[in-house]
Amino acid sequence: MPEPELIDHAGLDSAVYLRIYLTGVKIFVPIAFLVWAILVPVNFTNSTLELASKIANVTSSDIDKFSISNVPLRSQRFWGHVLLAYAITFWACYVLLKEYEKVALMRLQFLASEKRSPNQFTVLVRNVPPDPDESVSELVEHFFLVNHPNHYLTHQVVYNANKLATLVKKKKKLQNWLVYYNNKYSRDPSKRPFMKTGFLGLWGNRVDAIDHHGSEIEKLSKEIAAEREKVANDPKSIMPAAFVSFKTRWGAAVCAQTQQSRDPTIWLTDWAPEPRDVYWENLAIPYVSLTVRKLIIGVAFFFLTFFFMIPIAFVQSLASLEGMEKAAPFLKPVVEKKFIKSVIQGFLPGIVLKLFLIFLPTILMIMSKFEGFISLSSLERRSASRYYLFNFVNVFLGSIIAGSAFEQLDSFIHQSPSEIPKTIGVAIPMKATFFITYIMVDGWAGIAGEILMLKPLIIYHLKNFFLVKTEKDREEAMDPGSLGFNTGEPRIQFYFLLGFVYATVTPAILPFIIIFFGLAYVVFRHQIINVYNQEYESAAAFWPDVHGRILTALVISQVLLMGLLSTKKAALSTPFLIALPVLTIWFHMFCKGRFESAFVKYPLQEAMMKDTLERAREPGINMKGYLQSSYIHPVFKASVDDDEYEEENSENWEKESVIVPTKRQSRRNTPVPSRVSGASSPSLPEAIQEHPKP
Amino acid sequence: MPEPELIDHAGLDSAVYLRIYLTGVKIFVPIAFLVWAILVPVNFTNSTLELASKIANVTSSDIDKFSISNVPLRSQRFWGHVLLAYAITFWACYVLLKEYEKVALMRLQFLASEKRSPNQFTVLVRNVPPDPDESVSELVEHFFLVNHPNHYLTHQVVYNANKLATLVKKKKKLQNWLVYYNNKYSRDPSKRPFMKTGFLGLWGNRVDAIDHHGSEIEKLSKEIAAEREKVANDPKSIMPAAFVSFKTRWGAAVCAQTQQSRDPTIWLTDWAPEPRDVYWENLAIPYVSLTVRKLIIGVAFFFLTFFFMIPIAFVQSLASLEGMEKAAPFLKPVVEKKFIKSVIQGFLPGIVLKLFLIFLPTILMIMSKFEGFISLSSLERRSASRYYLFNFVNVFLGSIIAGSAFEQLDSFIHQSPSEIPKTIGVAIPMKATFFITYIMVDGWAGIAGEILMLKPLIIYHLKNFFLVKTEKDREEAMDPGSLGFNTGEPRIQFYFLLGFVYATVTPAILPFIIIFFGLAYVVFRHQIINVYNQEYESAAAFWPDVHGRILTALVISQVLLMGLLSTKKAALSTPFLIALPVLTIWFHMFCKGRFESAFVKYPLQEAMMKDTLERAREPGINMKGYLQSSYIHPVFKASVDDDEYEEENSENWEKESVIVPTKRQSRRNTPVPSRVSGASSPSLPEAIQEHPKP
Repeated sequence: MPEPELIDHAGLDSAVYLRIYLTGVKIFVPIAFLVWAILVPVNFTNSTLELASKIANVTSSDIDKFSISNVPLRSQRFWGHVLLAYAITFWACYVLLKEYEKVALMRLQFLASEKRSPNQFTVLVRNVPPDPDESVSELVEHFFLVNHPNHYLTHQVVYNANKLATLVKKKKKLQNWLVYYNNKYSRDPSKRPFMKTGFLGLWGNRVDAIDHHGSEIEKLSKEIAAEREKVANDPKSIMPAAFVSFKTRWGAAVCAQTQQSRDPTIWLTDWAPEPRDVYWENLAIPYVSLTVRKLIIGVAFFFLTFFFMIPIAFVQSLASLEGMEKAAPFLKPVVEKKFIKSVIQGFLPGIVLKLFLIFLPTILMIMSKFEGFISLSSLERRSASRYYLFNFVNVFLGSIIAGSAFEQLDSFIHQSPSEIPKTIGVAIPMKATFFITYIMVDGWAGIAGEILMLKPLIIYHLKNFFLVKTEKDREEAMDPGSLGFNTGEPRIQFYFLLGFVYATVTPAILPFIIIFFGLAYVVFRHQIINVYNQEYESAAAFWPDVHGRILTALVISQVLLMGLLSTKKAALSTPFLIALPVLTIWFHMFCKGRFESAFVKYPLQEAMMKDTLERAREPGINMKGYLQSSYIHPVFKASVDDDEYEEENSENWEKESVIVPTKRQSRRNTPVPSRVSGASSPSLPEAIQEHPKP
Repeated sequence: MPEPELIDHAGLDSAVYLRIYLTGVKIFVPIAFLVWAILVPVNFTNSTLELASKIANVTSSDIDKFSISNVPLRSQRFWGHVLLAYAITFWACYVLLKEYEKVALMRLQFLASEKRSPNQFTVLVRNVPPDPDESVSELVEHFFLVNHPNHYLTHQVVYNANKLATLVKKKKKLQNWLVYYNNKYSRDPSKRPFMKTGFLGLWGNRVDAIDHHGSEIEKLSKEIAAEREKVANDPKSIMPAAFVSFKTRWGAAVCAQTQQSRDPTIWLTDWAPEPRDVYWENLAIPYVSLTVRKLIIGVAFFFLTFFFMIPIAFVQSLASLEGMEKAAPFLKPVVEKKFIKSVIQGFLPGIVLKLFLIFLPTILMIMSKFEGFISLSSLERRSASRYYLFNFVNVFLGSIIAGSAFEQLDSFIHQSPSEIPKTIGVAIPMKATFFITYIMVDGWAGIAGEILMLKPLIIYHLKNFFLVKTEKDREEAMDPGSLGFNTGEPRIQFYFLLGFVYATVTPAILPFIIIFFGLAYVVFRHQIINVYNQEYESAAAFWPDVHGRILTALVISQVLLMGLLSTKKAALSTPFLIALPVLTIWFHMFCKGRFESAFVKYPLQEAMMKDTLERAREPGINMKGYLQSSYIHPVFKASVDDDEYEEENSENWEKESVIVPTKRQSRRNTPVPSRVSGASSPSLPEAIQEHPKP
């Protein structure tokens, strides 16, 4: 399947996600050849390790003989490593530049060729200021009629349907139970199923399960109807946010990229995410609360990264033999048995840590949600960068220096800035074999598991055994899921980091990394084409993050090499490395200026071109009808299949967008009659007339 | 003079500049009272220094008895310092918040009440891509007619008149000489003035000065005429930049704040600076060159800050006695004289350093110019922040730790991050008397010199003696200059830094700082009202920088206090300070989000309001005529008084903005006829028709 077809099939996000693996291959294959051709002979033809093993009885593996450890102190051969560090940096930057260029172009082409979609015309307005005279809907309409007179088309207010969504979810669950009990009854009509009303069906009154669920559902249905009524009519359930649609992409692009009001904390406009990408719960967070949340999460993440070992250690101490015996003396006879004892001593502490690491992405996701992002894609992007940081501190540095992050933090505070790279750098060559094992266990095996869908398979069977009650449940349990950017991408990035750090130090690691990238590319390509469902489409908005993290890895590798070489007393050659991080950071800024805007902004020329084309192709399209109800809370959409609310609801929506003529409106909207005004905004009155009156 | 009148009289820049001093007074007066009421008794009632002087014969001044040095190690009294650090931070942040709010409001009101000025309607477009078929002017016109169809009005291309400007300047100088010789001749008609044509009139042929200058001027005039011809007609002298004017402020605001083209490095749009604020030389720098220049200047500034002592020391060694005797042995008899010897030994090294420091702002300004800023105001802002950094490293840290910046850098690299605040912190109380002297010598005396206009007076008399030849020269020499943001503001910031750092350490310094701020406020207010000329008006665009630097000073003071307290073994109270920098940095981000946009963006609501008002007040105004020639290179404007070029020139400008119908134009501008197009951009054809045809 060629790339354009892949984009059609699975979206640009997936296609560009695959390119990350390809970038890895592109960067590391030439580097591997170069390093094996030059550095391996340079390292191997020394005999430092041989001598060391003779004198001090130090054992060294063959891999170490290929590595920088084999070069004696003060050797002139370190010039080779310095030169190759330059070569690697230039090659990596070149590949990254080309990739960024290509991805930016792909994104622009994707956006340009994309079919008409509501998010192209729509802007999300948040923090609509409260007004005693007008409702949110009226206020939004008046504001945009005044300030974007030629372009404003329609808008949809955002309802606070969080409670309603909870109720609907509850009802669905009960309906599922009802189906289950009905099935049970129909299989064995002689015995009516009973249940207890208490917690988990363990205690409470014994009641007929079918009747009980039936009445409960009826009760809930009434509650839902009441809540719907309330949401639709109570002005308090309207959030101070709205999706404002424009007649043209040009108008939407202008509104999304400019500041509307004098006060930059109200009338915040931004591109609306795709309808399926919206994270509805966060739409109503006010500005001050957002900044406070950022602070809280920043501090929380700091503690999570550096002090997460403290609660883990506490739980581990509880999960130890003595801890258990102390906390629950009645378990003593069980625990004292030999087999159980060894399980507890050997596995339990590890399992506690592993469980934490499994839940880490979820914890990070909750943190991002609390921080107030409004689209799933941005939630995943933020979680991904936090996960990367966590991995870097706890897995990379943790494995190299061996010690909890907290101990590292402590020693870093008390070490000089020039000591830190030395401490880490000197430990790097020794850990090469560990990381090779890591690549094979975590990387290769992970990919193998991925192709077998091992994790979903296990989860499916667990669910099937414990939770599945009806056919519908089984279907849901079989959902293969989506790509999972927030966990997958940081994992790839870790291999970039390993590759760059070890390229000049222990070239033997490179083939393993290349195999990882190649295998992963093939496997994920297969999964994307055949297995995964796409959850949303952000048009590769994550690439600047990916690019930035690869460059971070490059800078880290340069600094660590400097540290390593300075412990090797290569005083002549080391200073020549100082220019590398400076150049790399400058390259990052250059790329940011050159390409990032393609991922953040939407050029007016593009918008105008697309508008003009569309106008020529489909002259008579009813944009308003198309955009009217594209951003409805999913709970309203989902209700189509189980009751009659939808029609009533859509009528409500219809009514919603009609102007309620107030005193203020007439004052605000009447254009000042003048010649200049006639020339510069000729369609202001037209726009108002065009708008449906009651 | 109340503030509104001051703004009318001297512009918002000056009024807000004064507010910096007022902010200083507002911050430090309550802090001084608080500190004197609480900390001074806390410090004074100890007897550490008394004991020390008895035991170790250490002398201490009275000021030290008020300071933190007098509190014994491990004392519980340090809780007082910690508490006061919190109080100071909260008070300073409160004042800064109020000030930021007020200044932002002032700026918005100033912009709203400002009279019509060309920069409100005009956007500077840079990096217009080269096109083989069309000239820059045609290209700009077509691009904006297509992409801003309802709003585009007219444009002016930018000519590369740098050479012309040099010629005109040369001619003026010669004319000045001619006037001088004519005066001389008319005073003494018996003797015709002669001159030599060589360097500085020292050698060469002896010629009649009046004739010679007359013929030279004539030659130059011809050259200038030829150059003008060339600039006006040669397409190569048109830079790929243009000032594009719009019909409304709304249109300009939209264009200035959005991205135009898919490629973010071409069609760069930004608000045009005021005509008198434009720095013409930098308008044509391409994007890649800009990023490279930034890198070069960044590296150069790093070396300037940390290694400037090396060339200075070299020059000082030359300027020493032995150096001079070696370099110029013939001076030996002169140098050996006692008086000259002592002058050389005592003053010369200091003078070399002082000369460098005098020229430093000029050097920084040249660096900013090289970096490619396009307005004088941004040049000054950038120079100011560099100057502040330089002062911080070389004056503040340099005075405290005593050692060149390079030595500091070296020791900081080899010290741990927790050691650095300790090293500096422990030295702070000892330097209090030095800084009090500094405040009196540099601050107070500087203000006294300012009110006497001492520096301009000396310069004026020097110029009068050496350079002034005609009346015109004398007038120019008497120019009092403008506020000089790039040197003045960093100097004020230095006193904020001193105030915050010493508030908890040596409260005795605060009254000196308050007197400085108060005096400076009165004096500069007088100068601004009566003396200075305003060079440009940036509507207080510098306030975010000022705010940021005050907060930086606050954070530095907190970190240094932490360092100091930890050397005092106040292990219990010190950790409570850690939250302070975090909170302060968060406050900075909060303010940035809350207010900075008022200084960077222009809200559409404001633009629309102002457009509507203006349309109502002055319906029939000819905007095009008004904007047609507002951004002409000053060299064309200046030429009005000395030759007939202007008329011809303005005709040229007229011709310039007329559409030259090309094949491409018709293809590009014809709107696709369709119903939708008719509705959404009804004035596209109108806009084209409205545009004058040849």
